[in-house]
Amino acid sequence: MSVDLNAGDAPPSSILIERVWPEIDCGRYPVKREVGDLLTVSADIFREGHDHIAAVLRYRRWQDTAWREAEMRFVDNDRWEGAFLLAENTRYTYTIDAFPDVFGTWRDEVAKKHEAGLDVASELLEGRSIVREVLARCDEADRVLIERYLQTHAEASSQVVSVRVLLDDDLLAAVNRNRSRVGASTYQRTLEVIADRERARFAAWYSMFPRSAGTDPIKSATFDDAIAQLPRIAGMGFDVLYFTPIHPIGVTDRKGPNNTLVAGPEDPGVPYAIGSAVGGHDAIEPGLGTLEDFRRLVRAANDIGLDVALDLAINASPDHPWVKDHPEWFYKRPDGTIKFAENPPKKYQDIYPINFQNDHWQELWQELKRIVMFWIEQGVFTFRVDNPHTKPTVFWEWLIREVHLTHPQVIFLSEAFTRPKVMRSLAKAGFAQSYTYFTWRNFKRELTEYLTELTTSEMKEYFRGNFFANTHDILPYILQEGGRAAFQFRAVLAATLSSVYGLYSGFEVCENTPVPGREEYLNSEKYQYKVWDWDRPGNIADYITQLNAIRRDHPALQEYENLRFFGAGDDNVICYGKMTLDRSDIIVVAVNLDPFQPHETSMTLPIDTFGIGEGDQYRADELLSGETYLWTGAVQHVRLDPHVNPAAIYSLRSWTYQEYAEPCF
Amino acid sequence: MSVDLNAGDAPPSSILIERVWPEIDCGRYPVKREVGDLLTVSADIFREGHDHIAAVLRYRRWQDTAWREAEMRFVDNDRWEGAFLLAENTRYTYTIDAFPDVFGTWRDEVAKKHEAGLDVASELLEGRSIVREVLARCDEADRVLIERYLQTHAEASSQVVSVRVLLDDDLLAAVNRNRSRVGASTYQRTLEVIADRERARFAAWYSMFPRSAGTDPIKSATFDDAIAQLPRIAGMGFDVLYFTPIHPIGVTDRKGPNNTLVAGPEDPGVPYAIGSAVGGHDAIEPGLGTLEDFRRLVRAANDIGLDVALDLAINASPDHPWVKDHPEWFYKRPDGTIKFAENPPKKYQDIYPINFQNDHWQELWQELKRIVMFWIEQGVFTFRVDNPHTKPTVFWEWLIREVHLTHPQVIFLSEAFTRPKVMRSLAKAGFAQSYTYFTWRNFKRELTEYLTELTTSEMKEYFRGNFFANTHDILPYILQEGGRAAFQFRAVLAATLSSVYGLYSGFEVCENTPVPGREEYLNSEKYQYKVWDWDRPGNIADYITQLNAIRRDHPALQEYENLRFFGAGDDNVICYGKMTLDRSDIIVVAVNLDPFQPHETSMTLPIDTFGIGEGDQYRADELLSGETYLWTGAVQHVRLDPHVNPAAIYSLRSWTYQEYAEPCF
Repeated sequence: MSVDLNAGDAPPSSILIERVWPEIDCGRYPVKREVGDLLTVSADIFREGHDHIAAVLRYRRWQDTAWREAEMRFVDNDRWEGAFLLAENTRYTYTIDAFPDVFGTWRDEVAKKHEAGLDVASELLEGRSIVREVLARCDEADRVLIERYLQTHAEASSQVVSVRVLLDDDLLAAVNRNRSRVGASTYQRTLEVIADRERARFAAWYSMFPRSAGTDPIKSATFDDAIAQLPRIAGMGFDVLYFTPIHPIGVTDRKGPNNTLVAGPEDPGVPYAIGSAVGGHDAIEPGLGTLEDFRRLVRAANDIGLDVALDLAINASPDHPWVKDHPEWFYKRPDGTIKFAENPPKKYQDIYPINFQNDHWQELWQELKRIVMFWIEQGVFTFRVDNPHTKPTVFWEWLIREVHLTHPQVIFLSEAFTRPKVMRSLAKAGFAQSYTYFTWRNFKRELTEYLTELTTSEMKEYFRGNFFANTHDILPYILQEGGRAAFQFRAVLAATLSSVYGLYSGFEVCENTPVPGREEYLNSEKYQYKVWDWDRPGNIADYITQLNAIRRDHPALQEYENLRFFGAGDDNVICYGKMTLDRSDIIVVAVNLDPFQPHETSMTLPIDTFGIGEGDQYRADELLSGETYLWTGAVQHVRLDPHVNPAAIYSLRSWTYQEYAEPCF
Repeated sequence: MSVDLNAGDAPPSSILIERVWPEIDCGRYPVKREVGDLLTVSADIFREGHDHIAAVLRYRRWQDTAWREAEMRFVDNDRWEGAFLLAENTRYTYTIDAFPDVFGTWRDEVAKKHEAGLDVASELLEGRSIVREVLARCDEADRVLIERYLQTHAEASSQVVSVRVLLDDDLLAAVNRNRSRVGASTYQRTLEVIADRERARFAAWYSMFPRSAGTDPIKSATFDDAIAQLPRIAGMGFDVLYFTPIHPIGVTDRKGPNNTLVAGPEDPGVPYAIGSAVGGHDAIEPGLGTLEDFRRLVRAANDIGLDVALDLAINASPDHPWVKDHPEWFYKRPDGTIKFAENPPKKYQDIYPINFQNDHWQELWQELKRIVMFWIEQGVFTFRVDNPHTKPTVFWEWLIREVHLTHPQVIFLSEAFTRPKVMRSLAKAGFAQSYTYFTWRNFKRELTEYLTELTTSEMKEYFRGNFFANTHDILPYILQEGGRAAFQFRAVLAATLSSVYGLYSGFEVCENTPVPGREEYLNSEKYQYKVWDWDRPGNIADYITQLNAIRRDHPALQEYENLRFFGAGDDNVICYGKMTLDRSDIIVVAVNLDPFQPHETSMTLPIDTFGIGEGDQYRADELLSGETYLWTGAVQHVRLDPHVNPAAIYSLRSWTYQEYAEPCF
């Protein structure tokens, strides 16, 4: 905490480096960006008195030892800023060095004195000495350059000339390239940034049970049936295809349709009750096909631009090979039997929870890592992790780091619907994406508050919310009650509020039959095979296709933290927008949150922020209807009818940026 | 950053401890409180899943090795809180431990199952085993108690009884007293709190030049003359008497009256040009008296309740003994001569600045510490440090820690008027009090903004603003222009906005003749002797006396961070208040910031916060005038005339708390 006078001969640096940003929990956790981003780092950097200082941002790939440097610049009020390019999909380490700018201090002093007409003979001697000191660190070119300046300076015919030589900008540049670091202060922590691949931030997920990809309601569909679905899914514009677990399902205490306690002989069981005589987490449920079939599916998906995401559900059925091979990994009763899962008084006899802190925890953790690495070898680089909040956060932190050491492209999505701080801790530990409360945020104030927190608080540095409008576990009341219009506007909200969102299959045909009184699907695919009619009347597949196309066409919608809310007169209408930094893409969205009645209202747009003057005309292309409007001023009118246009997505272009040939009027 | 699987046999704790508060700059700097305070510490503490956890706040005096513990309690949303008493004037170290609450988890599970009518025979075996495990750590009394419970449990006639025995609260208490810490997580940092003595927070300072305490304008007053002033100063209610430097003043390049470059033979010089043939920082200017005289002065001051504060100005005149004995401590020119102070093109030939990072810095730092310790031995426990921002912050951090090791009662006041982050860094480094921008904040918005920052931001944890209405260096324009009314209301603002404030002598007689166009005193005591007429017509000594008495009578005014601003209709009138936590003392202040014209306006008081109902009558005693008002409701009227009553200080009491005998109507 303080200086030790016996610690060494050099005096402690008196430069302070404070409030470095971004920095999460005092550097305990990394921040997140994507490949190609500039990471801007700022800090308060200052020292006593008025001497000049300089600062550099030091950075390196996390597995390198050599540091690179980027110069930091003074911004204002002792705040400094620097940036470096995240050129690769890896993690980077960064910190800050600051040191006295001896030559800068000298230049400032001598210039002021010289200007005031004072004799600076003594100061010029000091200046020569500062410049000379630099020579030892110079390359040949700088050495020659600097020596030429010193020579010219020595031969100067007057003090005026002599001052001018030492204050020359080219000399300054050469000195700064080789300047002394004596008196340097290094920030006390090294920080980390994960540079994920772009799909960590920008992707549309489609979630499905592969066993329901077929046409026979009493038989498992196969991976080949799933392959047949790929064009339809890719055609709607999705980027990631996520499968519920594909592993062998336990037989003991298998659940029947609608979660009944006793399964019939033909009932397939819950895919989350993983493990049977056929194998565990590295095996495939025989009804789906073989490992080779799966690899073919992954290749076929990749070929049309789809990533395949697997479910990582660390559950074991009583029939999992671990139960026999590693009983020490489970919780035991006093009589030595293994405990099944419970939420007293509820019992889940078909699931054995894992004890992550058993005496042989290292073997367990290594086995779990082995399983992830196994699927990576099959071409899977995305994992949706089931209930990560019931396993230690430190385990996830360890696992994700281990995987990223060799496979930085792997993306983990945290399926944690739990308390806010637990959800945040998983994101901080390394999950690239997280499920969110969006699924239950329906109205204007709650959406605005939640999204403002996600995209403007510290969370934006590490938590990327993947907005699922439904999941196989959750059929929200808004979809049960609101019908087709609700499906449409919830899709618009998910796809435009966040840059990464997801739908669970059936959404496109507006499936919304619940278990009465609950937010769950009746006859859920979790417990039975299902056959889907994708052309069902009233389906919104075209609408979703259009939405995904709009997202791909508009870079503004591909960013996460650029969301801003705008005023709208009616509480049922929410209005917001996204803009690229260079203002080349400006999107404004208006959504009628009432699925029953039309609403019309005014929107107040920040046209000044958009670079549009108060009296300027600008063009608004409504992308869902194809209508184009010519607008002037901040306040615009919108009418949204749930049965016609529950939402509007405008692309704005300042008229002054238009080419004359544009056929808009 | 992450788990090492080879690090040991025990699995890592899965409990996370985050966002600990108070914690400044990730624990780099201590927070500040005063003796007798409870330090409340809170943190986010949680783990995966639903098992119960427990947490303790660990603390110790900084020089101890043994920790004490205070139980933390769950507040809400994974936030926990604990507190410990700062019983002594010293520094304390604190951190947090959290661990699985195995018995609590078990009790919860078994209670739920038992309630649901399930058989809990197996769970009871687990419970016995948890209770038994505790026995190894018990003292005799707890061992006997717990064994009696186990015996009763074993002999229970039914499961119902047997459950009831193990769920008994007395057993729980005994188990918790001796509970296992297996799986504990310790917060990764230890934090520090300085428990200062009360005068660090609550004090009124009076600043003077001891050489001006006499009656002869061409001769130095002595310490005995200063002793003669003590009753007057203590009589006005001041707590700390601060002297500008009392050390021998240099002769070389001595400044004359009004900072003229050449001093006459009788001119005393600037007390900040320290050091002459007579001695340096541990010597006394002969004109003032002897060391023995000074000690008598300190004793006399202490006897009437005044602390004596010395000025610690680390400057040397060219005649300072250091110049001969330690030329290596100074900055040198290329020709080997010592540099005087400069602010180009200005020159200060009478001052040699010190190089804190010279090659013999350890000897310099030790000498500076020796000087502080020398004055401590003379009974001085308060130091006003001159221009600390031109010396390294790390030096102050080291010095203050060194002094506090043996003399925790020492209070350092930072006289830094500089950039905000530099001022904050000095406070963080250990200065108990700091000068502030208050001296230049005159109007409602700027006062409100600045005080809100000081008393509600993180700064309140470490920065105690000592509000000086004037100093010997600063005669603010408001006092120059505003005359007597301004002196009155600036004194009220200083004395009631902050719990610690100060005045420089002459304020009580409204001295406000400036060097034309500057915020400096004409004929400043810095350069010459001065004789004061303390009974000068128009003096406000009685007003200041009244103010200090009000501060002593009202505990609400003795707290620092309890300031709140209230609405007032007129921009010239500022209204604010302070309240003790128990609401037993409620102060409301209204100040007319216009020194020229009367203003009347409404004040909107937060009577709900005061514990006063909307329709309730309450008593408002205006303490400066002695008038009493009976008020009802939040909105009250005030008229403030700069020539009659520039400010009002109300003490509010809810009528319902009055005894019937109160003679208020």
